[in-house]
Amino acid sequence: MQDPLISLTTDFGAGSPYVAAMKGVILGINPAARLVDLSHDVPAQDVPHAAYLLAAAVPYFPASVLHVAVVDPGVGSARAVLYVEVDGHRLLVPDNGCWTLLVREGSPPPLVYRVSEPRFWRQPVSATFHGRDIFAPVAAHLSLGLAPQALGPPAAEWVVLPQRPPRIEADRLAGEVEFMDHFGNLITNIPGPDFTALAGRPVRIQVAGQDVPRRVRTYADAEPGSLVALVSSSGRLEIAVAQGSAARQLQARVGTEVTVTAQDTGTDGL
Amino acid sequence: MQDPLISLTTDFGAGSPYVAAMKGVILGINPAARLVDLSHDVPAQDVPHAAYLLAAAVPYFPASVLHVAVVDPGVGSARAVLYVEVDGHRLLVPDNGCWTLLVREGSPPPLVYRVSEPRFWRQPVSATFHGRDIFAPVAAHLSLGLAPQALGPPAAEWVVLPQRPPRIEADRLAGEVEFMDHFGNLITNIPGPDFTALAGRPVRIQVAGQDVPRRVRTYADAEPGSLVALVSSSGRLEIAVAQGSAARQLQARVGTEVTVTAQDTGTDGL
Amino acid sequence: MQDPLISLTTDFGAGSPYVAAMKGVILGINPAARLVDLSHDVPAQDVPHAAYLLAAAVPYFPASVLHVAVVDPGVGSARAVLYVEVDGHRLLVPDNGCWTLLVREGSPPPLVYRVSEPRFWRQPVSATFHGRDIFAPVAAHLSLGLAPQALGPPAAEWVVLPQRPPRIEADRLAGEVEFMDHFGNLITNIPGPDFTALAGRPVRIQVAGQDVPRRVRTYADAEPGSLVALVSSSGRLEIAVAQGSAARQLQARVGTEVTVTAQDTGTDGL
Repeated sequence: MQDPLISLTTDFGAGSPYVAAMKGVILGINPAARLVDLSHDVPAQDVPHAAYLLAAAVPYFPASVLHVAVVDPGVGSARAVLYVEVDGHRLLVPDNGCWTLLVREGSPPPLVYRVSEPRFWRQPVSATFHGRDIFAPVAAHLSLGLAPQALGPPAAEWVVLPQRPPRIEADRLAGEVEFMDHFGNLITNIPGPDFTALAGRPVRIQVAGQDVPRRVRTYADAEPGSLVALVSSSGRLEIAVAQGSAARQLQARVGTEVTVTAQDTGTDGL
Repeated sequence: MQDPLISLTTDFGAGSPYVAAMKGVILGINPAARLVDLSHDVPAQDVPHAAYLLAAAVPYFPASVLHVAVVDPGVGSARAVLYVEVDGHRLLVPDNGCWTLLVREGSPPPLVYRVSEPRFWRQPVSATFHGRDIFAPVAAHLSLGLAPQALGPPAAEWVVLPQRPPRIEADRLAGEVEFMDHFGNLITNIPGPDFTALAGRPVRIQVAGQDVPRRVRTYADAEPGSLVALVSSSGRLEIAVAQGSAARQLQARVGTEVTVTAQDTGTDGL
Repeated sequence: MQDPLISLTTDFGAGSPYVAAMKGVILGINPAARLVDLSHDVPAQDVPHAAYLLAAAVPYFPASVLHVAVVDPGVGSARAVLYVEVDGHRLLVPDNGCWTLLVREGSPPPLVYRVSEPRFWRQPVSATFHGRDIFAPVAAHLSLGLAPQALGPPAAEWVVLPQRPPRIEADRLAGEVEFMDHFGNLITNIPGPDFTALAGRPVRIQVAGQDVPRRVRTYADAEPGSLVALVSSSGRLEIAVAQGSAARQLQARVGTEVTVTAQDTGTDGL
């Protein structure tokens, strides 16, 4: 049997003693655990960023991996810690909605437990570092085969990440930037298929009122430095600058408005 | 038996070819070694930072792990390389004090060897990259079961990290910032129990002369953006800004003075 | 038998969902794969940087490791994906020259296959993320024992990284900065032995016209803050500032000219 895999996602910073301490606690309880760093560079306390990252990564992993995410502005407060089984994947998360983008249409309802049984925690539990004192030891015990039911009672309610869905109309798509990657590419919440369908007609693509002049299939189809629209690898409308940063060039950020408007209706400029 | 674990701590930068080369040398000698990145983001040549990080992380690991730390401004000089067993943990370090915070009151004296036997080194040894040429191959050989005695003679003396202990008085605690984390939280050298004891009375908390108005149990107890004092997860007085950066707000850094002064003595302002 | 090792090098950023997705795809196909992060901090689309990094790291690894490098400005275009065996090492790379610095004088000719068999790819293949859709699944299948011949036909031609060799003359060496490390050390393309030979005589060392006053064996031989020349751990002329950054002090970058000129010829100043 494979040694168990545990993935780690935090906003602690890659070189943080906090990440190191979590790794130590996990390996102290289960020295056979195999640790996979997903990200420790989630912006501080940025739950929506963590949610996007988990939704973009977890589905590719095998079901056997336990994903531990500690982006947790509510640490030490009354917020719960949750063990979640969603769409065939297992996570250990604060109850702040960071995992709810993994719920897909048509997938079975998630199975959620409140982690409330202190027997599996590190004692004493600090008020500011549940990553070390609750998440790490609980993850290690799960990786040793502990049944999730032992962690605490089933939960029927949990925090759901608020989302602003795009407006999809016959002649117009209106959404926003949902994620900026390391290259400065702007990933929007506008579904690729809706964009592709509308862009069969002449369209005007705008980011915060600035025109995106060209549509391409991939970055290499564009002149270096030119601003383009394409369908991202996650199936969304993406705004990019070939070999450059759309975020910087457009001064855009998460939440910046993006629109796609049909130009063949005869109403433009009237 | 578990495959052996080796942790790596350097100031090389996470994406450095130097880290990659060390991993290659270790795996070349022992392909079964399991590598755990602690941090490669220690500020360049910052031995006190490395010392703090090791003290904050190593104690959580199982005794079986070998911790390799290469923050080494003296590389190529006459400074020794040491194999250390301290408080149940094993390290391979330059003799610059980066490990001496792990010595605790009441723990048995450390067992220290000078790594001087070139048989286990990569040849030729460069003058500037002992991480690749000494630390990595020696770590790999140790992970294969080499006895530490084979590395060189026992050492009776070593460099001890200079420390400035806080002044603990009946009505006043005076210390300094010892570590700033990724969030900008300021971890001081003032012990949490001393702070908690004094703060049972009205106290004035100051960082470089600026008042910290409120004391909380955890970040979530404070308004976002407000400056607070609390006991850190490492058991020290910590100064934080909830969902913000105390380091930035107070223009503080490692070494900045922090004081806690009782306000009920009737002498204030006289 | 050891579980197979796969190293990862990208320009995605260490905390990127793209790195996480690649890890997920690999582990989804081969849960026994052991992942080693080489670097995810290659500057965006910087193929020469990736080439330098691979040349500085891959030779230290055991032959059994498969190195996956995805620094790929041509993603989605007609550029090929290559499986390469070079000098006893195995890589999976875009055909952009990022691996060709590994070809050494006297080593046998590389064995190269074009990765063109979609059977081993993730479907549908996106136009912008071959790391997830081609590199990761192909690497995982190779780690399960797939023969490289199954990936596609042998290739007889490939892109070779353009290089500007230094000019080596009897009284003068003229080269350039080839790599800047995390410390700001400037690694040049001037071979250490040529430098050492010429520097047996009085020499003038200049970086973009600025004099480097002193030559040392290692950083610790110099006063902190002083500018020095030395032979790097990779065997090249290196310009450094002890406990500082030569890149910052000299405003140098990759491509900045570096010269070493003999001063005992009697022609200086005439």
